[in-house]
Amino acid sequence: MKGKAAVLVKPYQFEIREYPPPPVEPGGILIKVTASGICGSDLHYWRGEMKPMLSGKPGPVILGHELTGVVHTLGPGVTTDSRGLPLKEGDRVVFPYFFPCGHCYNCLRGEWNHCPHRFRFRASVEEYPYCNGGYAEYFYLYPGHFVFKVPEGLSDEALTPVNCALSQVIYALHRANLQMGDAVVIQGAGGLGLYAVAAAKERGAGLIISIDGVKGRLELARQCGADHVIDINELKEPQERIARVKELTGYRGGADVVLEVVGYPQVIPEGLDMVRKGGVYVEIGNIWPGSNVTFDMSRVLFNMTTIITTAHYDPWILSVAVDFLERTKDKYPLTRVVSHKFPLEQINEAFQQAEWLGRQQEAQVTRAILVP
Amino acid sequence: MKGKAAVLVKPYQFEIREYPPPPVEPGGILIKVTASGICGSDLHYWRGEMKPMLSGKPGPVILGHELTGVVHTLGPGVTTDSRGLPLKEGDRVVFPYFFPCGHCYNCLRGEWNHCPHRFRFRASVEEYPYCNGGYAEYFYLYPGHFVFKVPEGLSDEALTPVNCALSQVIYALHRANLQMGDAVVIQGAGGLGLYAVAAAKERGAGLIISIDGVKGRLELARQCGADHVIDINELKEPQERIARVKELTGYRGGADVVLEVVGYPQVIPEGLDMVRKGGVYVEIGNIWPGSNVTFDMSRVLFNMTTIITTAHYDPWILSVAVDFLERTKDKYPLTRVVSHKFPLEQINEAFQQAEWLGRQQEAQVTRAILVP
Amino acid sequence: MKGKAAVLVKPYQFEIREYPPPPVEPGGILIKVTASGICGSDLHYWRGEMKPMLSGKPGPVILGHELTGVVHTLGPGVTTDSRGLPLKEGDRVVFPYFFPCGHCYNCLRGEWNHCPHRFRFRASVEEYPYCNGGYAEYFYLYPGHFVFKVPEGLSDEALTPVNCALSQVIYALHRANLQMGDAVVIQGAGGLGLYAVAAAKERGAGLIISIDGVKGRLELARQCGADHVIDINELKEPQERIARVKELTGYRGGADVVLEVVGYPQVIPEGLDMVRKGGVYVEIGNIWPGSNVTFDMSRVLFNMTTIITTAHYDPWILSVAVDFLERTKDKYPLTRVVSHKFPLEQINEAFQQAEWLGRQQEAQVTRAILVP
Amino acid sequence: MKGKAAVLVKPYQFEIREYPPPPVEPGGILIKVTASGICGSDLHYWRGEMKPMLSGKPGPVILGHELTGVVHTLGPGVTTDSRGLPLKEGDRVVFPYFFPCGHCYNCLRGEWNHCPHRFRFRASVEEYPYCNGGYAEYFYLYPGHFVFKVPEGLSDEALTPVNCALSQVIYALHRANLQMGDAVVIQGAGGLGLYAVAAAKERGAGLIISIDGVKGRLELARQCGADHVIDINELKEPQERIARVKELTGYRGGADVVLEVVGYPQVIPEGLDMVRKGGVYVEIGNIWPGSNVTFDMSRVLFNMTTIITTAHYDPWILSVAVDFLERTKDKYPLTRVVSHKFPLEQINEAFQQAEWLGRQQEAQVTRAILVP
Repeated sequence: MKGKAAVLVKPYQFEIREYPPPPVEPGGILIKVTASGICGSDLHYWRGEMKPMLSGKPGPVILGHELTGVVHTLGPGVTTDSRGLPLKEGDRVVFPYFFPCGHCYNCLRGEWNHCPHRFRFRASVEEYPYCNGGYAEYFYLYPGHFVFKVPEGLSDEALTPVNCALSQVIYALHRANLQMGDAVVIQGAGGLGLYAVAAAKERGAGLIISIDGVKGRLELARQCGADHVIDINELKEPQERIARVKELTGYRGGADVVLEVVGYPQVIPEGLDMVRKGGVYVEIGNIWPGSNVTFDMSRVLFNMTTIITTAHYDPWILSVAVDFLERTKDKYPLTRVVSHKFPLEQINEAFQQAEWLGRQQEAQVTRAILVP
Repeated sequence: MKGKAAVLVKPYQFEIREYPPPPVEPGGILIKVTASGICGSDLHYWRGEMKPMLSGKPGPVILGHELTGVVHTLGPGVTTDSRGLPLKEGDRVVFPYFFPCGHCYNCLRGEWNHCPHRFRFRASVEEYPYCNGGYAEYFYLYPGHFVFKVPEGLSDEALTPVNCALSQVIYALHRANLQMGDAVVIQGAGGLGLYAVAAAKERGAGLIISIDGVKGRLELARQCGADHVIDINELKEPQERIARVKELTGYRGGADVVLEVVGYPQVIPEGLDMVRKGGVYVEIGNIWPGSNVTFDMSRVLFNMTTIITTAHYDPWILSVAVDFLERTKDKYPLTRVVSHKFPLEQINEAFQQAEWLGRQQEAQVTRAILVP
Repeated sequence: MKGKAAVLVKPYQFEIREYPPPPVEPGGILIKVTASGICGSDLHYWRGEMKPMLSGKPGPVILGHELTGVVHTLGPGVTTDSRGLPLKEGDRVVFPYFFPCGHCYNCLRGEWNHCPHRFRFRASVEEYPYCNGGYAEYFYLYPGHFVFKVPEGLSDEALTPVNCALSQVIYALHRANLQMGDAVVIQGAGGLGLYAVAAAKERGAGLIISIDGVKGRLELARQCGADHVIDINELKEPQERIARVKELTGYRGGADVVLEVVGYPQVIPEGLDMVRKGGVYVEIGNIWPGSNVTFDMSRVLFNMTTIITTAHYDPWILSVAVDFLERTKDKYPLTRVVSHKFPLEQINEAFQQAEWLGRQQEAQVTRAILVP
Repeated sequence: MKGKAAVLVKPYQFEIREYPPPPVEPGGILIKVTASGICGSDLHYWRGEMKPMLSGKPGPVILGHELTGVVHTLGPGVTTDSRGLPLKEGDRVVFPYFFPCGHCYNCLRGEWNHCPHRFRFRASVEEYPYCNGGYAEYFYLYPGHFVFKVPEGLSDEALTPVNCALSQVIYALHRANLQMGDAVVIQGAGGLGLYAVAAAKERGAGLIISIDGVKGRLELARQCGADHVIDINELKEPQERIARVKELTGYRGGADVVLEVVGYPQVIPEGLDMVRKGGVYVEIGNIWPGSNVTFDMSRVLFNMTTIITTAHYDPWILSVAVDFLERTKDKYPLTRVVSHKFPLEQINEAFQQAEWLGRQQEAQVTRAILVP
């Protein structure tokens, strides 16, 4: 048996090749991929701005990490998903795209998310287990990996961002311990930002303010539950936006929680000034090496701000995220963010289109997915 | 009745004047000051590098905020301290030197420490309540202020830093939620640093590493409970010190908690690199406006570090701090950090000496106190 | 100036008398009462089953603690509510009906709710401050008490239960730390139970199960957000109800959180068996002396259940509760639970009717209020 | 290869038999047992008061769960302990004696301790993996089980109770979140009680009160750090003991935390009355089916007590416990609680002696261990 995979052979160029999936070990699962999204970080790799970290020999890899699929083969001994629900071949599932080691100080404490040895690729496509990216027919889950059966009625389009963007923001709000009634500011209304608005709404936030520069996104933010939006084309100066947040948050004197999901380090000082005394700033977006930020620590200190940073998520959050999506699918426009579908063979066109879309000022939140 | 007060009339110059203490309102308390320490921030004011924030008319103020004294007059209705212990005139007490408003979002939530309206001076020495600094015979506690009776057997020398340095670090470790067995690094072994070592020890820290450049301080850090010390004259490069922390913390891969108490923003990136994945960085020392720090947020984010900042403390911590001092007075050399005593009239000499001491490379932790 | 007050002179009998409100001290507020509800505990006092605890001389008291009103007189120095919002005479407000001491170990730690000295009446109606119950024209707030300005558009009917039932359940869910996605069981769908369903929904509970024996209440529970209801007339045995909860909670093996709000101690063992391993049981309803419960501790221990008990609430929760009511007033039928209004003079009839309503098996959640 | 094992063939009677250890699977570890303690629950099984729960066929089992040993065989793929420390054959290790499933809602959330499927025996000694009890030459760790390398210098005697009694109380104090300075009462000064005193001391408890009826134990409690002891032969009535605790805790009005480690349900109401308002009661000892307790819930509710129950511990706590023991071995008399050693062949005599010792009123804390 062989499966197709889109291999990034050099910047801006994928090639469709065929690989045998690995033998399925006891405890392992082979996934038949049904859809893979194109996320911002995939574009970074594609442009050659980032290189995959491999512990094996250098070589090309299969990109794609926002994905869903169905169980193709259950390894010996696997009878349930990670919550104990019966699992059989053909069942639709989601799973984290990163693999904690399970044998370190952090994993031991249940902080899988903080595992210093967790990895995404591990090896080039030439080495076991070959199928380690979403732009392929098969994806291999190492023995003991987390996997969650998905309820009927959630589409591929709705499910692809669950194991990345949605889980990330749900985890961030969990760690920030956003309380019912809290005031929250979300810097950015792209994919992460819209999920964050909806998740904050669902936790009972009392006041949600969304900030962005694209009208269509701000409109979606309102539909997801934002009470107020700030358009950076209207309030052009950080000081104006800070003043607006202070006005809207009234007696609080700022937001209880501010989330950064745009990924520009220059918005951090502005966001820090939007937090109420004793509040929390949550950093999610600035994942690129060289995201240098400069601020006056004494300001932050006298504001007694706590800064929380979150990369990835604890695996149990993915279970919460799937349930959230199922429960709210008719409430928020979250399951309609995918606008374009491409067969795997057209991955080069798909990436060019995604790149172009990302550059449009009027861009909606439009994600393309690939269907192997 | 009038009382002497040392008024800072211009940089580097105090004048002894006399003021009437205010009438003691219902709920208020007039304190007879018995000792006031000279803290780093007092030196900043003295040099003219910082100006007191006043809500009333501009004018000179009385410096001094690390202080202790005895009850001179109890206002009508005051019969107990803030824990309900009987209080009478002549009792030795400690109290926060800052005053939360008690009527805002933060005070309402029990976060007095985060009160945006809390103040230290409020007015120049020419206005009510006159006695609002420690370098004076009297100090006035506004109605409803927090006050704690002190057990017998603690000297003035031991007590003066309780309402500032000691409470601050106990609060910081409380907020960082340092657990029994945790590994902790403390950047700086001055007054705050030594208190932090002893308080971490008392919480059951499994590994305490103290960093400083003065041998005498590092020796005191060992006596306070540090398992290891790092002398920056021996490990001169940040990378060496980070490597040493990683070596000492072994399977943790860094410290669970790192505290910054030196007050130089340039040590922050180094300290952030000493935190284990998922650990906590606590910022205490960088209180001067212009404490600019620059770092790559993506490093902090992928380390999933939480940054906690603490200025001052919640008032109940002062009660914990007094009990701590009483309980451990024979265990750590904390009650012997005061080396010089001056009568209030010699305040100009006292400040000159404190300034000189602070400049010595070989300086021990030697605080001067003033005795009105 | 004198004000009317309904004084309970003996069981089952109120008398309308007139009292002068007390002089308004600095920091105090005199409230003009606009509506007072009849709560279950008021009925207990009325029947003579409970006696008010007084620290002064014995004597009759004014009952009524679920109340709202407008500011009649602001004491000297009061310019804002407890969040810092400007406050003037005529403003509609809510406030806790109990008074923490503010000077004890618990108050010091911001745990006002746990103040051992907090009181409701303190003195009979013959002593200062006379106006200490809701069934009267005036109600006195001691200096420094918590008070919250209410937004326009919330009716007296909606507001009377805010300072008791609604704040209580919001606080209970806060302490139970109910997380988005959690499964929750609420034993009882009376006033507290319906508020609990709505508040759990607003916190993002993933599965809400309401248990009661009155069809009309279960119907309201559904309207407030219950996903499932259990009618004890259909599932008559505790074992059946426990089995149903385990079936509905699926892979969790029980509810993350179970709340008891019926006030019968015999439902506690049943509720404890509905909690998932490691979950939380919250006890609210069993407030009557003699609420004896017997269970096998080893079962609870091997289920690793945490039992949280909550009486009253921390005052800041009242601010959260008012905001919650304002935000959700068009979403849940919570503002329509009051069915009968009586003028203060008809208090005897009002209590007889409330007593009768409480006995009806088909009873809806129908609260009577008194309008002075 | 065969190994000796003491099989409980009927109440009060062990037989030494020989069994082959199982083949060591990938990820599994075979332990050569060096010492196994006799714990109270082993005596219960021995007397026939409790029956092991088996998922396989009924049959005799190997008792013994407080044990330590060295690595005999590492299964394929095992190179480190659960913290990532290198592990080789011959290394001394400790490990939990119970096995979470790793595939359920609780395990998923890192709450291994709450795993409803965790087991101790699983099968009779006639079935794979045979070696599932401590009174044997070999003990088998299933693939993926938690294991911790032990530092040099800790004796068998010191180590046997680590994976049961010590980890249990450290976990209990962790969940109770005992803070530095807190007042704590420990009901019982047997093995668990002494460990609890020392662990509370190490967390910085401000006041530790130990209650027991055996003078020798109370003396050991003092050596472990108790500030006060209550001898139930001197204060014979619960009311006297409650009054003494309230006197000693002064302004707190009771203990912040009370731990029950005696295992008699009748001490629970007394212990609940020793908790300060808003404090925590921790239930550890009442593990026997039929541990019925009766109390008035309204008292607990108006005291706003939280009741925490803990059986076993989260595995990472075992790592903390070993470090604790290493760090404090010269500080507390914890490593000297073992008084008798027996070779495995004399297990029948060992149990008879342990039974006799447990009945002596003057009994010290004296544990017997078996040395295969």
